Amino acid sequence: MLEQLKEQVYEANMLLPRYGLVTFTWGNVSAIDRESGLFVIKPSGVEYGRLEPEDMVVVDLEGNKVEGKYNPSSDTPTHQILYKRFPKVGGIVHTHSSWATSWAQAGRDIPCYGTTHADYIYGEVPCARSLTKEEIEEAYERNTGILIAEEFQRRNKDYLAVPAVLCKNHGPFTWGKDAHEAVHNAVVLEEVAKMAFRCEHLNPEIAPAPQELQDKHYYRKHGANAYYGQSVES
Amino acid sequence: MLEQLKEQVYEANMLLPRYGLVTFTWGNVSAIDRESGLFVIKPSGVEYGRLEPEDMVVVDLEGNKVEGKYNPSSDTPTHQILYKRFPKVGGIVHTHSSWATSWAQAGRDIPCYGTTHADYIYGEVPCARSLTKEEIEEAYERNTGILIAEEFQRRNKDYLAVPAVLCKNHGPFTWGKDAHEAVHNAVVLEEVAKMAFRCEHLNPEIAPAPQELQDKHYYRKHGANAYYGQSVES
Amino acid sequence: MLEQLKEQVYEANMLLPRYGLVTFTWGNVSAIDRESGLFVIKPSGVEYGRLEPEDMVVVDLEGNKVEGKYNPSSDTPTHQILYKRFPKVGGIVHTHSSWATSWAQAGRDIPCYGTTHADYIYGEVPCARSLTKEEIEEAYERNTGILIAEEFQRRNKDYLAVPAVLCKNHGPFTWGKDAHEAVHNAVVLEEVAKMAFRCEHLNPEIAPAPQELQDKHYYRKHGANAYYGQSVES
Amino acid sequence: MLEQLKEQVYEANMLLPRYGLVTFTWGNVSAIDRESGLFVIKPSGVEYGRLEPEDMVVVDLEGNKVEGKYNPSSDTPTHQILYKRFPKVGGIVHTHSSWATSWAQAGRDIPCYGTTHADYIYGEVPCARSLTKEEIEEAYERNTGILIAEEFQRRNKDYLAVPAVLCKNHGPFTWGKDAHEAVHNAVVLEEVAKMAFRCEHLNPEIAPAPQELQDKHYYRKHGANAYYGQSVES
Repeated sequence: MLEQLKEQVYEANMLLPRYGLVTFTWGNVSAIDRESGLFVIKPSGVEYGRLEPEDMVVVDLEGNKVEGKYNPSSDTPTHQILYKRFPKVGGIVHTHSSWATSWAQAGRDIPCYGTTHADYIYGEVPCARSLTKEEIEEAYERNTGILIAEEFQRRNKDYLAVPAVLCKNHGPFTWGKDAHEAVHNAVVLEEVAKMAFRCEHLNPEIAPAPQELQDKHYYRKHGANAYYGQSVES
Repeated sequence: MLEQLKEQVYEANMLLPRYGLVTFTWGNVSAIDRESGLFVIKPSGVEYGRLEPEDMVVVDLEGNKVEGKYNPSSDTPTHQILYKRFPKVGGIVHTHSSWATSWAQAGRDIPCYGTTHADYIYGEVPCARSLTKEEIEEAYERNTGILIAEEFQRRNKDYLAVPAVLCKNHGPFTWGKDAHEAVHNAVVLEEVAKMAFRCEHLNPEIAPAPQELQDKHYYRKHGANAYYGQSVES
Repeated sequence: MLEQLKEQVYEANMLLPRYGLVTFTWGNVSAIDRESGLFVIKPSGVEYGRLEPEDMVVVDLEGNKVEGKYNPSSDTPTHQILYKRFPKVGGIVHTHSSWATSWAQAGRDIPCYGTTHADYIYGEVPCARSLTKEEIEEAYERNTGILIAEEFQRRNKDYLAVPAVLCKNHGPFTWGKDAHEAVHNAVVLEEVAKMAFRCEHLNPEIAPAPQELQDKHYYRKHGANAYYGQSVES
Repeated sequence: MLEQLKEQVYEANMLLPRYGLVTFTWGNVSAIDRESGLFVIKPSGVEYGRLEPEDMVVVDLEGNKVEGKYNPSSDTPTHQILYKRFPKVGGIVHTHSSWATSWAQAGRDIPCYGTTHADYIYGEVPCARSLTKEEIEEAYERNTGILIAEEFQRRNKDYLAVPAVLCKNHGPFTWGKDAHEAVHNAVVLEEVAKMAFRCEHLNPEIAPAPQELQDKHYYRKHGANAYYGQSVES
């Protein structure tokens, strides 16, 4: 069942330790098959060194396990909601990567200070508030997904142009057209978070990069007039 | 004698350099066999590259060497006291890992700023005061253990829920149900110490994570209602 | 065509990930054959793991592609202008290396705080201003090159003695007598940027190194009276 | 000639990149044969990857090259003076290791904030002033050695108990009973410099570790009453 997607999700999960984004089991990647409405996700709490493609768990968009010998990631309801609310997303990543998580713990958006950021993420990376006591007790992981979607709506942000979010006191989620791109964006986010930290310490008065520079870099890589790389990216 | 435990303690010691927690010989792991009341610990000052399982030293709970060609770690009396005062602990780790030691040198508790911390450690990581001149001269390593136990008592902390401590101007100790879990907690502590440092520099006014979020994450992994991973953890 | 130069440029590009200077495809190296007036540069957006020497693209000094199956780096017009304005430069590197980029994002020159810096770079590393909206829209990459050259002229800096620049909100360019030396200088810049950050945080009142010490170190390695190494360097 | 010492000095030099203490050729190790009064040192500016034991250069205590196809390190006169002024030193290391150099650039002593430091270095690591213009022009490397020796005398410091120094705006020197111990101390210094930086940022009011704790740790490893390790260290 969805063997190819399981293979992709497995490969994408294995990239997390390789890029230094996870310690132990602190991360998970999923990807969705939009035709069947099923998504594939890492099992909960299984070490990366022991994972096999067939260990990936298949879940439907109501959050029911459809196939798999393991329990799916405890963060599955967050992925589920994001797939529902962000219909063009094909893959999702959650990590506790150290720089992005430090910003999340600090409860701060990451401003766009330069072109490394602007090449991939349009404008600041939003930090969503902590859940309330009621939201946590009612359905923590599910409400995390709802909060993220509402934060994007509230700020009028396009989730395709801003493929990353921080959850206050928790950590980052990133996404993309597939599992691989979602991991790629997780790496970008970590690098951007690190440089923004250092940038602010070098110049506490620094303002975000000029809007025209952000536009230039974002649109040289994205959209109809992109000219970076070997072919136009969607 | 205790061959299996020696093997485990050896393996756990070898994880310290692999996780980047020790430089040279600056760390040690022990584990106890509660039935016989004997514990096994790394020899003092022997390089990790030259260690063999049979080099591990067997010590009783009064601190007497029972077997082994080498002297046990100079920190043995600290381990001994912790095994006596913390009767459900099965393994203990001491390192000079750089982020945790920086907090210890600063004489500060590590506040719980997020879920990475709350997943493993309930509330702040306490920093115990420096020993007095008299305590140092009388029995430095032994009094270090006594001070740690008293600090937990004074703060009314459950050592199973808070498997880590900082000793002021010195460094961290961590523990767990066995040597492997104690090393795992040493890795968690280092990661948590690093992110807390960065978090405070991103937002000097930051407060600890809301108590309900700390509770949620801690109890999703621990106790009767845990649902993280593939089976309930004790 | 220019097979040897392609090989050199390929090798130099492959050094960027090895020295930890690039993430993904975020960097490029070029080198020029001054006789023919042609330069060789990395293709745009191709992963380092898939590059081959024959993938390098040949470009003339007007910016026209002369040979190659791929599009040249999107930063090609910047390289082109620098080769025109800095006639003794043989190789150019652009990266988003994390420490140098943090200074660029902060919009600050890197002061010369010590001999590591003075050994290779005479005086501060200049940070050029952001381009204006008009400059960006007219010809972003080309105007980046023009701005760098003008910044050196305005400050009366010798580009051979200062083989590095930061572009505000963007990142560093370095150069040298060939591709290999340009990469070498990119490594130096990153190391110098890191130590200058830490130095300022240890002593916010610190001033640049005394001029006589900077002179001593620079001239012990460069010029007619150099005595570092095994032969006089040009 | 001195083949065994050359081998040791070669091995010690090769440890520098392995411990992450040098970039390119930015470091050198020497060791002395006290009987003959000759010391062996790395050649100047030769890459670590190409070094062979037989490339080491033999120099006498007046600074004359006695044997070797290469020029000795440009820092040779500093080593020479230190061997003369510090008669019990057997090996010397100079690096531009990044944390220690950051303190040197900041012109600050490294205070003893904890036991990691106290285990190896008694009290603060001194930072010697910059040389004057006259001292630089007269004999830069030689006067660096003289300044270090005078700084120890002025502060009444025992060079065996404090096997490290920082030269302002430059970088660290360390030493030991042989080349290997000198490298060991260079690693200790880097680690201590890193943790002291972080410690001060966690608690700007922090004072050095209590003297009695420094004494305890230093003397548990050094002198007649040492009990760390498997045998008494001198």
